[in-house]
Amino acid sequence: MGERFIKMHGLGNDFVVLDHLESPRELSPQEARFWADRRRGVGCDQVVQLLPGVEGGDAQMRIYNPDGSRAEMCGNAMRCVGLYLHEQRGMAAALAVETLAGIMRPQVTSALAITVDMGRPQWAGRAIPLDQDGEMIDAPLEVGGQSYRMTALSMGNPHGVVRVADAEGFELAKVGPLVEHHALFPNRINFEVVQVLSRSRIRMRVWERGAGITPACGTGACAAAVACMRQGWVERDCTVVLDGGELQIVWLESDRVMMSGPATEVFRGELVGLPAGF
Amino acid sequence: MGERFIKMHGLGNDFVVLDHLESPRELSPQEARFWADRRRGVGCDQVVQLLPGVEGGDAQMRIYNPDGSRAEMCGNAMRCVGLYLHEQRGMAAALAVETLAGIMRPQVTSALAITVDMGRPQWAGRAIPLDQDGEMIDAPLEVGGQSYRMTALSMGNPHGVVRVADAEGFELAKVGPLVEHHALFPNRINFEVVQVLSRSRIRMRVWERGAGITPACGTGACAAAVACMRQGWVERDCTVVLDGGELQIVWLESDRVMMSGPATEVFRGELVGLPAGF
Repeated sequence: MGERFIKMHGLGNDFVVLDHLESPRELSPQEARFWADRRRGVGCDQVVQLLPGVEGGDAQMRIYNPDGSRAEMCGNAMRCVGLYLHEQRGMAAALAVETLAGIMRPQVTSALAITVDMGRPQWAGRAIPLDQDGEMIDAPLEVGGQSYRMTALSMGNPHGVVRVADAEGFELAKVGPLVEHHALFPNRINFEVVQVLSRSRIRMRVWERGAGITPACGTGACAAAVACMRQGWVERDCTVVLDGGELQIVWLESDRVMMSGPATEVFRGELVGLPAGF
Repeated sequence: MGERFIKMHGLGNDFVVLDHLESPRELSPQEARFWADRRRGVGCDQVVQLLPGVEGGDAQMRIYNPDGSRAEMCGNAMRCVGLYLHEQRGMAAALAVETLAGIMRPQVTSALAITVDMGRPQWAGRAIPLDQDGEMIDAPLEVGGQSYRMTALSMGNPHGVVRVADAEGFELAKVGPLVEHHALFPNRINFEVVQVLSRSRIRMRVWERGAGITPACGTGACAAAVACMRQGWVERDCTVVLDGGELQIVWLESDRVMMSGPATEVFRGELVGLPAGF
């Protein structure tokens, strides 16, 4: 038989995890596309390759999109990797994982919750990036003949958060692509609409850059919560209700954002064989 | 660990195969939905459960759709089951498999081709069913302000075949649902457009009843080929080029239709566990 793999998901955001800690090798874009193919391969939103750490971390994590390109970071995948390294590889509950976005620190707090230190939000316009110097805090954005009030920030990737009265009723599929490609966002943007349910609970729906509506986005949940916290709409410890389930977001006094949520191993398998030519 | 399964596909039409030959049990609609779930389960177009034969066949095959309902028959799945029973279970190359559509006879002719006896086409209007008594052979059908010439037949399920000059350019996503729900078809219909490439080769695209455009449909390929053969447009041994690959269709003098094509095992796995309550 061929290559072993693990299929996992965090709130429905699903991953094929390839454990190459003992036998590191390069993953070609073609091979990543094959693993991600839901009909002729295994199928997932992202392929996660685990390699030995090279900067002192417990492991290095490489994330591949279904088109074969690399992604910097994925909060949902990081929870899955934390669970896998701790439960299946016997590593410590507190881990250091190297990513293109720097060293991330997932911590397995129970079988049902993994907490990831998602780092500090960046608010400066050029850092997000916006095509403006200053911050964008609950400021008007004209899109498709409508005016929205947006808060923009980076959680390693760019996010624009808009508070709405009814998240379920919001036409995200229509407005999402217009926001993503708005001229204010030179690298495009992920778009979150949030409805404040209470002082400690928000409902969020997400339009992901290049992917459309998805059941869950970890960095997006952090961005949405922190945007609401900065406005004083909610406390600094808040539950975010996504289509795929719930995440707990805490914004520490140190300015670091902690994200807690589940990770689920679904199945393990062995590929019959990689197609020829990879 | 939990339940073992095999993931296979025929021309991109993919299946989770559950081998319950030794330990037969009922599969609930909820469990079928879970297996078919591409994010939180394993993921497939249909779940195929193998049970011991009860009518003298080598095995019984039950097909579940992603919504948990049962399907009578699936030609692509039958090729996969033939390959599996022969290669993995050591059964004969010529098999008898019990389905809701009767006993089907797949034959493994090589590692790359499995032939299935798909039975006899039914042309009588009420048998397909059409809302008319006679046959429908290259007869006009008015849809969306356009007139098409359709040949209708049953290959266990209903098909309507229309010859076009350019299959790639045909607006299948627009016309497909209109044909599927046309008043002439009391049980709706699968819709195939075919372009005759030569005396032994046709290009076909399919709109599947309840599923939309799919990469391959085994009964649809048989229906399209036989419709063209009956018109004398192609020989009675013909290659059908689908989005997902090619199938070989032979219409025997005995009136039986033989379909040959590949089946591919992709991976085998073990589910971590079924969710509670199944």
